[in-house]
Formats: sequence, structure tokens, C-alpha cells
Amino acid sequence: MSESSEEFQSDFFEGTEKLLEVWFGTRSGNEGPKKCDLRVIRRATWESMLKLVKCEIISQMSNEDVDAYVLSESSMFISKDRFILKTCGTTTLLCCVEALLYIVNQFTGFDKVRDVFYSRKNYMRPELQDKPHSSFEEEAAALDTYFKDGNAYCLGSINRDCWYLYTLQGHHINRADQTLELIMQDLDPRVMSIFTQAESNSALEATRKSGIDTIYPGAKIDDFLFSPCGYSMNGLIKGDHYMTIHITPEAQCSYVSFETNFPHDKYDQVVSTVMRIFRPSKCVATVFASKDSVASRAVRHFDDLAVQGFQQKELQMCRFTEYDLTFALFAKAPS
Amino acid sequence: MSESSEEFQSDFFEGTEKLLEVWFGTRSGNEGPKKCDLRVIRRATWESMLKLVKCEIISQMSNEDVDAYVLSESSMFISKDRFILKTCGTTTLLCCVEALLYIVNQFTGFDKVRDVFYSRKNYMRPELQDKPHSSFEEEAAALDTYFKDGNAYCLGSINRDCWYLYTLQGHHINRADQTLELIMQDLDPRVMSIFTQAESNSALEATRKSGIDTIYPGAKIDDFLFSPCGYSMNGLIKGDHYMTIHITPEAQCSYVSFETNFPHDKYDQVVSTVMRIFRPSKCVATVFASKDSVASRAVRHFDDLAVQGFQQKELQMCRFTEYDLTFALFAKAPS
Repeated sequence: MSESSEEFQSDFFEGTEKLLEVWFGTRSGNEGPKKCDLRVIRRATWESMLKLVKCEIISQMSNEDVDAYVLSESSMFISKDRFILKTCGTTTLLCCVEALLYIVNQFTGFDKVRDVFYSRKNYMRPELQDKPHSSFEEEAAALDTYFKDGNAYCLGSINRDCWYLYTLQGHHINRADQTLELIMQDLDPRVMSIFTQAESNSALEATRKSGIDTIYPGAKIDDFLFSPCGYSMNGLIKGDHYMTIHITPEAQCSYVSFETNFPHDKYDQVVSTVMRIFRPSKCVATVFASKDSVASRAVRHFDDLAVQGFQQKELQMCRFTEYDLTFALFAKAPS
Repeated sequence: MSESSEEFQSDFFEGTEKLLEVWFGTRSGNEGPKKCDLRVIRRATWESMLKLVKCEIISQMSNEDVDAYVLSESSMFISKDRFILKTCGTTTLLCCVEALLYIVNQFTGFDKVRDVFYSRKNYMRPELQDKPHSSFEEEAAALDTYFKDGNAYCLGSINRDCWYLYTLQGHHINRADQTLELIMQDLDPRVMSIFTQAESNSALEATRKSGIDTIYPGAKIDDFLFSPCGYSMNGLIKGDHYMTIHITPEAQCSYVSFETNFPHDKYDQVVSTVMRIFRPSKCVATVFASKDSVASRAVRHFDDLAVQGFQQKELQMCRFTEYDLTFALFAKAPS
């Protein structure tokens, strides 16, 4: 191997996040003596759980509905009955599932897992991942040891850009819930340079210079600029609504993820705004919407979604028990 | 291993078919000195190609538009510009692709592959398959050596019932084309017994007793009853429209496939008729429809398709360049 290819390797960072969302409930539907609220769990307990994942809390922000943590590798959101953990690099997210279920059972009144969603894009360099993250088959098998009757899916092209999902869905929830995720790769280097300490003096400066603060004006923002480069932010919008952005700016592995559960009845504007800010060459967009969500119509008509300057290369839809899911792959249109 | 489990294994037959459909064309769009028609290729040439697949022709029937062959393992349909080969068991379908492309180039005026579709359900016993059919990854890699820029997909649950597709799609075709496939498993043994020589004296008797002749009344039928059991049929409806049914009746591995390119603007009736005849416990339904097909609306609204006595357990849709695809999994409703 030449020196330059070694250099290339040393600069590599796997931005691709593992994303776990778990909803808790009670078998009886009633609250017992212990409180049914994940926020009763102490930060020190979360910290010990995160050791299993090989990451740590670097910042925290809360509103009435959700505790949002910026992690050394991505983010964690804790609300009453919903746990979200998103971690990148070579973290071992699924190593925490057993501990999570134990902690929730020990400290809260929840005695039931209602819904589980585990997802990620295909890794750029799967061979660098630690067990059980070497392959999606291995990840699904690990999840099968904790949950019964989960289903594993692959959306997009198995042999190109794809997105994996493991889900376990309970019965009717009467819950208006929706999640948009944009996973962007090969981004404009001029935009990416904003997220380096060489170009921005602070996270706030990067947030403003890039226009991230314009996506949901009024959101309460907790942002972090890594040294020498890299950026994470959590935003609390209102109620139990969050947004989160994670940026790996290195040219040879540039990666940006955007995620929000803010309800939209159309996704055109938010998707266009985010893609205009980051200028990716390609972008995977996924939208989940429960039957009761305002987004439930939008998720079924995602083919109408046009983003200026981009071609929709792939479009898939899945109907699940309580959610509809749309997967789309956008690629920069030839100019 | 006990004697009974050995006996079980010896009775196993992989009904699951590999299905390849290739459309040919010319680069210039015009016909040269050689005829642009796959039917100029002689039967002896097809026979030598099929040796590579490890199967042979056992019967032939033609109409003005298509030559339909019943094979020792499933079927082959040759029309002007479309080649369809469907083979079950441990046949090595993909071993013929190089020969197919050579033969078409040698004997016809076609110099271009316009579209490719290779698909199959997950095998019951993948470990019994020969190369390159041991895994879908291997099959996709084999296809990649012949075709450029093909995409590989997995519909349904990777870890349960799923259906694989490799496709390469050309540019706009202005072709009204559609294919319905029903892949049924765990079927009613009383229905399956019809397709044994113990119960039926001839293929014709099995065709009539089961009601297969009622699916498309008036179709020209070429049917075959294997010894001691098993059944194949090709039907020519009118024009370039075919149907084909293949039945593995053994209780421990019962499998029936139904396929047709007959155009329907709704699929309720044909799907219900076929499922009422065969009484499967589960059924994968796939429908491809080109933009110009009368089925193009139906394929987008497949969620409306209800089959009495069955639950729609999975529903996925894919938008491709020229085709829409719907995948549905039906399971017998609890009685």
C-alpha cells in the first residue's frame, strides 16, 4: 500500500449511525407504584449504560417533555415513554439493549416494550465495525435475542446504497408519531469546511454560518464543534419534538444526518431546506408515520416529493401494522 | 438422525423457482440483415443451453406470438423479444446467461439487452443449492458479471419470508407489460393430492379436477403430471399472454407458483380464484406493471386488494424507471 492510501485510512471516520428507538408501556395499561417515565432514570445510570456502547455524554439540555443528550458519538433523547439512541463511528450500540431493558424495568413502572426500531444505512467500511455490528444479519440476530417476532428489512439496493431496518411493532397505539431522517453523503467541501475549528471559532458560529438555525427557527439548540472537526447538535422544538444533526466533514468520508420527529403534512420544504444547506451528492430520505400522524398522507405520496437539483433514484414504501414507511434515494441531477 | 428424519429429507424437493426474464432490442432501433426475433433460434440450440441449467424440454406448444416449453423443472417462454426461463429444484439457471447472450447475438439481429429481471423467493433449503445459487449475494454477483449497473433488492422480511429481485432497466420503453406471480406454500393436502398419479390418471384430469382450467377459460393448455407426483402447466391465452403453474405437492415442502402476464386493471379476482383453488397457508404476491400497462394503477393501490380468508401481513411497493412493483405477503386468517 502506498503512503497516500495509508494516510487516507487514518483519516477515515464512519459517520453512519446506528439508530435505536424503543417505546415502553405497561401490560395492564395502568400505572403501578413506580412512575412510568424514563426521565426518572439518573444521568449516572445512563452513563454506565453508555459505557457498553463505548461513548459518553458531553452535553445535556431539557424541556418539559424530553431530555436531550449530545454524546461523544451522536445523541440520546429520553422522553416519558420513548428512548432514542443514535451512535456513529465504531460504537457498539446494541451492546446496551440488555442493560436498557434491565434499567427500565428496575427504575420505572414500565413492564412492556411496545415498539422497537433499529436502523442504519450500509456502512462505508463494515470491516471496521465491532461485534455485533459486522453485518445486518448479525445485528438482527442480536436483536432477536431480546425481542420476539421482530422483522428485518433492507430498503434500497442491497448491492449499492441501502438502509436496514429491524422493527417490532405492537398493536394499535393511537399515537401521532412521525420521523424524518435524511442521510447525506459526498457533501460540498465548502459547506463541510464550516464544521472545522479552522474555519469556525465555535459551534454557535458553525450553526449560524451554515444556516442550521433556520431549519426550525425558535428551536432550543445544544450544539458542539469537535476538534479538529466534526459537529453535533440537538434541537428541542416544542412539546416532545426534537431535531438532531451530526456531521463528519472529512472529504473522503463526508456524512451528514438530519433527523426530526416534528410533524409535517408535507415534507417538501424541510427536505429541500436541509439539502440546500448541506449540498450532498446523494441523500437517503426515510419517513415513518403512524396512522394517526398528520404525515400519514405525505408518506404514502412521497413520489410527489421533488427536490430541486436532485433526481429521485429509488422509491420504496412499506406498510406496517401501525406505521407507513417511505424510503427514497436522491442523487444530484447532472448539471 | 432417526430414520424418519432421513425419510423426510429424501422426500424434500425445492419447489422454489429461479425466474429470469430478459428483453432484447437493437442499439439503432432498426432491424438489420438478421431477424430480430428470438423464435428463429432452433429447439436444439435451446436444448444445449438448457443442459447448462441441468434441465430439459419435455413438451412444447406455440401460438402466433410465443413458444411455450414445459421443462423437466418448470418452464420456458420465447417470444419475439422476450426470453423467460423459470426453473426449480437444484437447477443452475444463471449458468445459462452467457450462452443465452451468445446465442441471441449469433442467431438474431438483437444487439442489446433492454431489461433484465431475475427473482426468486427465499429457498426452503439454501444449503442444497449449487453455485452460483447458494445465496442471493452470489446470484447478484454472477449477474453483475453479465450486466452493468443492475440493482439487487430484497422485499419482505430478510429473516422470514422474502423475495429477491435483481433488475436492470433500460430507458423508456412505451411497452404495456405486467406480470403477476403468486408463490404459495403450505397448501391444503386435499388439494395437493390431486397432483399425484395415485389420485389423477392424467394431467388433464388434474387440471380439470383442481379447477386450473377455470382461471383463464379458453386458454390453450399444455399440462404435465409427473411420476409419482408433481405438476406443470403452460397456458397460452391470447396474443403474447401466457400463464404457468408449477406444483410440488409433497406435504413437508408443498409449493405452488402461478404466473401470468395477462393484463388486469384489478387483481382481486384472479388472485382470489387462484388462492381459492390451491388453499395455501401463505402466499407471496408480486405484480410488476410498466407505466403504460392497464395494471399500473392496480399495482399502486395493492393495499386495497383483499382476499377472503387471508390477512395481508406485509406490503411493499417499489418505483422503478419503467415499472412499478408491489410485493404482498398473505397469511391464512385465524379461523
